Amino acid sequence: MSLQLYDLAGAEPERRFSPYCWRTKLALAHKGLAVETIPWRFTDKDVIAFSGQGRVPVLVDGDRVVSDSWAIATYLEETYVDRPSLFGGSAGKALARFVNSWADNVVAPGIARLVLMDIYAHLHEKDRAYFRETRENRFGTKLEAVSADRDTRVVAFRQSLEPMRLMLGAQPFFGGETPNYADYIVFGCFQWSRCISEFQLLAADDPVAAWRARLLEAFDGLARDALGYAV
Amino acid sequence: MSLQLYDLAGAEPERRFSPYCWRTKLALAHKGLAVETIPWRFTDKDVIAFSGQGRVPVLVDGDRVVSDSWAIATYLEETYVDRPSLFGGSAGKALARFVNSWADNVVAPGIARLVLMDIYAHLHEKDRAYFRETRENRFGTKLEAVSADRDTRVVAFRQSLEPMRLMLGAQPFFGGETPNYADYIVFGCFQWSRCISEFQLLAADDPVAAWRARLLEAFDGLARDALGYAV
Repeated sequence: MSLQLYDLAGAEPERRFSPYCWRTKLALAHKGLAVETIPWRFTDKDVIAFSGQGRVPVLVDGDRVVSDSWAIATYLEETYVDRPSLFGGSAGKALARFVNSWADNVVAPGIARLVLMDIYAHLHEKDRAYFRETRENRFGTKLEAVSADRDTRVVAFRQSLEPMRLMLGAQPFFGGETPNYADYIVFGCFQWSRCISEFQLLAADDPVAAWRARLLEAFDGLARDALGYAV
Repeated sequence: MSLQLYDLAGAEPERRFSPYCWRTKLALAHKGLAVETIPWRFTDKDVIAFSGQGRVPVLVDGDRVVSDSWAIATYLEETYVDRPSLFGGSAGKALARFVNSWADNVVAPGIARLVLMDIYAHLHEKDRAYFRETRENRFGTKLEAVSADRDTRVVAFRQSLEPMRLMLGAQPFFGGETPNYADYIVFGCFQWSRCISEFQLLAADDPVAAWRARLLEAFDGLARDALGYAV
């Protein structure tokens, strides 16, 4: 029974930009599991109603349905125990939870403010009103205003990555010598931007950019070859 | 052969406030290792010259001398392999390195700005000129000015802990169900403040305060019973 993943897409079915779906796609690749990805749009709520909620990623594995990127990673680790570990044990999983919280609280919101209009520009027509309404409620302002000052705001974003930069002075990946799920958590945020924006999130000589480049090459260039921008 | 630790002290020999020494003291307790702590002041450079550098913690274990809290944790993990693990394996250690970087870049500087004058007030007389000069160079302003706006600045400090707060919604410790070295890294920063300041870093209902309270009780109240303030 092959695995299926509902994967957020833009106007073009092959533009797959969700940071959370990228976490899952890299976790599946780490486990060596083939997956059929199904393009899905924000307003296709009925298509995934069988999952009991309205967001992707949704993974279907035979008669099992799992949603939420963290729950999917936990499911894969527990189900495919003979495959390479995503967490490296219970302590690794517990600390990956902190990385997940840091990425969701610092990295993802930081990037969202920089590229929100670029996401909007790549959406399927049927998703635009939904996206504008939900994001304008979240940010409390017009979409156009959120990213307007990004050339100055990017300085603070880069500064917010300093803990990661310090770590990369000691080791090449969150996982140590090789990447693990903690890397995919954070990388998913950068891949989100790469799929829909030409904006330069990182200076060329930033160690974080070198880390991102290593992960773009992982799994035969899975992320590198995705439809996006070579930034 | 008993272990010895050079441990930063204030005017009173029993006021042991270094965040890095607290990381080491909790790591030793986690390993179940007894240690003789030796009070040391910033200007006692000659006393630890044998370590080849001028900062504490310095651990002496028979003929082995190890300085730097991260290096000491690594040394203890590799030397006392039959004792409870500090890291829970290589993935846990790699991610603890990220927590170390986050604590050093976000938590410790955030606290320093709030309690710097309280540290100064508790120093041994012979350390005061050294402390004032080095810290005024670091912060680029007078000691008195650094903490002057702390009642407003504490809001941003508390906000900077949000990744940790999110994690604590899912598990009681960085280490998962039980604390490990990643917890001691961050806790050392809070214990630093507790030893020298009455300033309320955390709101009473903050999940981070509940986590701190759990660690104050660890190892028969090792941190709770240290000379400091019941904040």
